[in-house]
Amino acid sequence: MPILNFKDNMYRSHTCGELNAQQIGNKVTLSGWVQKVRNKGFMIWVDLRDRYGLTQLIFDEERSSKELMEKAGNLAREFVIQVEGTVIEREAKNPNMATGEIEVLVDDFKILNSSKTPPFTIEDETDGGEDLRMKYRYLDIRRNPVKNKLMFRHQVGMKVRNYLSNQGFIEIETPYLIKSTPEGARDFVVPSRMNEGQFYALPQSPQTFKQLLMVGGMDKYFQIVKCFRDEDLRADRQPEFTQIDCEMAFVEQEDILNIFEGLTMHLLKEIKGVDVAEFPRMTYDEAMKKYGNDKPDIRFGMEFAELDDLAKNKGFNVFDQQELVVGIAVPGAASFTRKEIDNLISWVKRPQIGANGLVWAKYNEDGTLKSSVDKFYSQEDLAAWAEATGAKPGDLMLVMAGDAAKTRSQLSALRMHLGNELGLRKADEFAPLWVVDFPLLEWDEETERFHAMHHPFTSPKKEDFALLETEPGKVRANAYDLVLNGNEIGGGSIRIHDKETQSQMFKYLGFTPEEAKAQFGFLMDAFQYGAPPHGGIAFGFDRLVAILGGQESIRDFIAFPKNNAGRDVMIDAPAKLDNDQLDELHLQLKL
Amino acid sequence: MPILNFKDNMYRSHTCGELNAQQIGNKVTLSGWVQKVRNKGFMIWVDLRDRYGLTQLIFDEERSSKELMEKAGNLAREFVIQVEGTVIEREAKNPNMATGEIEVLVDDFKILNSSKTPPFTIEDETDGGEDLRMKYRYLDIRRNPVKNKLMFRHQVGMKVRNYLSNQGFIEIETPYLIKSTPEGARDFVVPSRMNEGQFYALPQSPQTFKQLLMVGGMDKYFQIVKCFRDEDLRADRQPEFTQIDCEMAFVEQEDILNIFEGLTMHLLKEIKGVDVAEFPRMTYDEAMKKYGNDKPDIRFGMEFAELDDLAKNKGFNVFDQQELVVGIAVPGAASFTRKEIDNLISWVKRPQIGANGLVWAKYNEDGTLKSSVDKFYSQEDLAAWAEATGAKPGDLMLVMAGDAAKTRSQLSALRMHLGNELGLRKADEFAPLWVVDFPLLEWDEETERFHAMHHPFTSPKKEDFALLETEPGKVRANAYDLVLNGNEIGGGSIRIHDKETQSQMFKYLGFTPEEAKAQFGFLMDAFQYGAPPHGGIAFGFDRLVAILGGQESIRDFIAFPKNNAGRDVMIDAPAKLDNDQLDELHLQLKL
Repeated sequence: MPILNFKDNMYRSHTCGELNAQQIGNKVTLSGWVQKVRNKGFMIWVDLRDRYGLTQLIFDEERSSKELMEKAGNLAREFVIQVEGTVIEREAKNPNMATGEIEVLVDDFKILNSSKTPPFTIEDETDGGEDLRMKYRYLDIRRNPVKNKLMFRHQVGMKVRNYLSNQGFIEIETPYLIKSTPEGARDFVVPSRMNEGQFYALPQSPQTFKQLLMVGGMDKYFQIVKCFRDEDLRADRQPEFTQIDCEMAFVEQEDILNIFEGLTMHLLKEIKGVDVAEFPRMTYDEAMKKYGNDKPDIRFGMEFAELDDLAKNKGFNVFDQQELVVGIAVPGAASFTRKEIDNLISWVKRPQIGANGLVWAKYNEDGTLKSSVDKFYSQEDLAAWAEATGAKPGDLMLVMAGDAAKTRSQLSALRMHLGNELGLRKADEFAPLWVVDFPLLEWDEETERFHAMHHPFTSPKKEDFALLETEPGKVRANAYDLVLNGNEIGGGSIRIHDKETQSQMFKYLGFTPEEAKAQFGFLMDAFQYGAPPHGGIAFGFDRLVAILGGQESIRDFIAFPKNNAGRDVMIDAPAKLDNDQLDELHLQLKL
Repeated sequence: MPILNFKDNMYRSHTCGELNAQQIGNKVTLSGWVQKVRNKGFMIWVDLRDRYGLTQLIFDEERSSKELMEKAGNLAREFVIQVEGTVIEREAKNPNMATGEIEVLVDDFKILNSSKTPPFTIEDETDGGEDLRMKYRYLDIRRNPVKNKLMFRHQVGMKVRNYLSNQGFIEIETPYLIKSTPEGARDFVVPSRMNEGQFYALPQSPQTFKQLLMVGGMDKYFQIVKCFRDEDLRADRQPEFTQIDCEMAFVEQEDILNIFEGLTMHLLKEIKGVDVAEFPRMTYDEAMKKYGNDKPDIRFGMEFAELDDLAKNKGFNVFDQQELVVGIAVPGAASFTRKEIDNLISWVKRPQIGANGLVWAKYNEDGTLKSSVDKFYSQEDLAAWAEATGAKPGDLMLVMAGDAAKTRSQLSALRMHLGNELGLRKADEFAPLWVVDFPLLEWDEETERFHAMHHPFTSPKKEDFALLETEPGKVRANAYDLVLNGNEIGGGSIRIHDKETQSQMFKYLGFTPEEAKAQFGFLMDAFQYGAPPHGGIAFGFDRLVAILGGQESIRDFIAFPKNNAGRDVMIDAPAKLDNDQLDELHLQLKL
C-alpha cells in the first residue's frame, strides 16, 4: 500500500494509521469512526478508525475533566468524531498494531455525526450474513477485508496501466452505446428516445472497436473497461464486469504471448513478490487429455493417465465397453479410510458431476496393491496402472470410465476437488500457463450448427484451412488462453483481417450475407481499406485481481456487486419506470 | 509522446518513426501503410506510415530488380506492406522529418493487405468532410491530427491517474447498471430481462455511489468514468462522456480546492510546460458582475463596468428605463470602421443573442471621444465612461442596457466574440480560476419551483441557512467550479452529510417524503450510520483534454463520437431489435 500523505486539512493533522513513538508529546488532530469503547469508569479507551488504521484514544479521570469523561462515556460504535489531544507513550504496547506504541490523551473532541447501532459488527470477522452486508454495503466497505480488497484492486489497475503504457500501449475509450449483435451472449439494450423504435446495446466487449482501431493504425491499444452480458447469472458471475482489453497490429501469436506473459510476470513480481519461470505452453488437446480441462491448475500433479490398454479386456465388463478409461494418482491418499473413499464415490455421483462410479486402487507403503476391482486385476496389472499414473507407495489411484469428453470433465472435477481438500491449491503459489490451439468451432446441439468457440473474428490456422469444408470441428484456431491456478484469466486470438476470409467465416457460422452485412458490415467495409494483421487478448480484471489476492470469489473485489438475480439490493435496482418515461422512449410493457 | 520500444516481432524490426543516420547500413524490416507513391519510372519513392511516423522507401532501376520495380509500381495509397531493406543516407535530407536523414533501399516487400482508394485523403489536411470522416472514422484515426489527439488523451489520463494515486486517492469502479432518478437530466435506461417490467438506468454520474464510498470510509476516491445523459444534443455535446470523478471525506471546501488546484497545476506543468500562479477565486456574484458569466475567460481584460450612475438621467431615454447599463472597453478597437461596428451591432441583434442594440464610444488616439450617442453625452460624460471601463486612447467602448441578467449574458457573449475575433484567446495561454459561492437553488419558470443548481446533495452555507425559509433564491451553496479559459472544466460541492438536512433539502426541492425515500432512501439510510463530512468535484475529461490540447471542440479527442442525433454513423447505431429480443425483455414498441 502506498504511503499516504494526507495531513493538510482542518479535520485532521494525521491519519489514524501513522502515529508512532516519534510523535510522543505532539498535539494532534484525528478524525474517524469509533470502533470500540472500553469504559472502566475511571478510564475510557476508544479505538478510532479511519481508512489508514486504528489509534487508541484515552480519557482518564486524573487527567481529563469530568465533562470530557462524561461526553466520552456517551460515545458508541460508528460515531464519527474529531479529536484533539497529545500523543503519549502507551503502557501496554501492542506490537501487532502500526500505532501500538502510542495512544492519544484527548484534550477535547467533537461529534461530527452520530450513528445508529450498525446492523452488523464492523470488524474483520463480522456477524453479518451475506445478504445483510450487501444491503449495507457502505458499512461492509468499512471492514478491513473488503476495504483492503478494493485498495488492492486499485493497485493492480495502476500497475497494469503503467506497465502497458510504458510498453507503448495507448488506452483508448470505446463507446458504451453501441449496436446489438445476435452472436454470443445476450446484450443489454438501451432504448433510444431520439431514434424512435431503435435501441443501443451495451458492449459485451469492445471487440469490433478494437479491431477498427487496428485498421486505424493505433497498433497497441488497451483499455480497462466495463463490459455487459445479460446472462442467467451463476454464482460469482456479474452482469457487468471489467476487462483489460488489448489489441496489437503487425503481430503474430508469439508476439502477443510474449507481451502479456511479460505483463503477468510483472504483476506477480510487483504485487506478490513472486518470480515465475517462462510460462509453459500446452495445446488444448493436451490440456484436455492431461487435465480434462482447458484451464488446468498445474500447481499440483495428478495428471491423467489413459489406462485403456491396461484396464480393458481383463474381464471387467464395466471398463470394456467404454470409450475411455482414465485415472489419476492422489499423493499420500493410500491411507484414506473406506469411509473417505465412499465419500469420494458419492461426490462424483452427485448430479452436478454425474459419474457412474469410481474405481480405486491403493498403492500401500509396503509395496502391495489393493483395489476395488481385485477380482479382475492382478498385482501386476495394478502395478502397471501405478507406472502409468505415476503413483508411488502411499498413493491412491482413482479411475473412471465412460464417454471420453464427459469422463475427462468428471475426473477433472474430482481432481480439483481433491486439490482443494488436500490443500494442494496454495493461495501463495502461482502457476501460469498458456493453452493454445483451441478449436475454431464448436458444435451446438441445440441450434444444430457450429458456433465460434472464441468469436467469429478468430482466424483459423492456415494449415487447417482446408478442413473447414470437410471437418470443421477439427479446425484449430490461432486462439490462446492465459490460465492461472485453474482459472482462465485471459483469452484472445489472432483475428481475421481480410474481407474474404471473414465473409467465409460468417458463412460457416450460418449467417446469410445479408445478416453478416447488417451486423458487421462496418467491419467488413473497414477490411477493404488496408487492415493490418492483428490480434489481441482480454483479461478478466475482476478474476485476475481475485486470484492475485489469493481468493476464489470475485465479489468482494467489486465495490458494489449485484446479487445472483442481477439486483443491487442496496439501491434496490432495477426498478419500475414512470409511464411518462416509457412514453418518451416509445415503449410499453408486455407482461 | 513516450519513446516506444516496439521492435520485438517478425513483422518489423523498427517502427516507421525511428530510423536515423545511426542505422545507416543496417538491414531493417518495416511494416505500415503506403502514404504516398512518387513514380518517376527509373525511381520510385514510397512514404511508409505507421503510428510512429513516416519512412521514405526507395526503389531504383540501378539497384532494384525489374520485378521489384514493377511490383512497387503497382502500389497504391493505403496498401499495407512489409518491407525488407537497407538503411541508406538520403540525398535530399528533410530536417522537418524525424527520419529525414535516411531512406530505406528496398530488397523486397510483401503486400499484407490491399486497399480500395480511401474515400478521403489520409493526410494532415484532408479533403474529407465531417460526415464522411465520421462514417469512416477508422480511416480518419490514421490521420495525424486525430491520432495525436487520442494519444494526447491517453497521456493526460495517465498523468491524472498517477497524480491522484500518488496523493492517496483510490480508483474505485462504481456500477453502470443503477437506478433511474427523476432529478436532473434524463436517464438512459436498460430494461431488465430477469426482473420483469423493471429497468436499470445508466449513471449520469456516480454521485450517490461516491458519497456512499465516503460513508464507507474510503476517504479519497476517484474514477475516470463514462457517464450518460439522454439530453437533446447540442453541438459538441455527447450522450456518453467521460468524467474524472472525485470525492473526499474529512475535508472542507478549501481542502478540495487546494488538492485539485494542485492537480490542475501539475497537468499544466507536465503537459504544457506552463507554470501558473495560485488560482484566483471569484464569487459567482462577482463573476456575473465582471464578466456576465459564471465561467469567465480571464485571459483578456474587458471587464464589465456598470454605468448606471454615469449614463442614466442624461436625457437618453433608452438607458433611463433599464435595470442595468453596462459597458466594456475593447483594446485598440477605436480604429474600427463604421462597417465593423455595424457588424457588431448586427451580431448582438441576432436571435441567438437577442440584444436590442449597442451603444459605442471611441476613445480616439488624440484623446477625443466620439460616440453613437453624442447628442446626449458630453465629452466629460464619455471620459467618465472611459474611466469606469478602463478605456485608454485607441480603445472602443461598447455599452448595452436592459434587464440585468439578460444584458450581462448578452454583453458576455459579445465580449467572448471579440476575444475570439481579436485573437485574445490564445491557445497556449492558460488562466484558471475558481468560481465559488454559487446559489444553492435556481428558480425554474416551467415547473414553477426551485431546482438544485448543482444537485440536491449540495450543502447550503451555514450562515445562509436561515434564508432557506424566507429567500431561498439568495442561499449560497458550498459549491465551486474550476474554470479554464472560459470553460467550466470542473465543478463540485461540499455535500450534506446528515439525514435531517438532506430531508429538508428534498422538501425544498418539492419531493414528498415518499418520493425522497423511494429515490434516495439508501443514501438517507446510510447517513444514519456515521456519515463523515465530505465533498468532491468532477472534471469533464473530454473538455479538459480538449482545452489542454488547445482546441475548443471535444469531438476529435473521442475515438468514436456520436453525431448530433446521438447516432454512431460508422456502426449505424442505434438500430432496430428483433421481436424475440423485445419479447424477452417484456417490451413492445409504441410508435
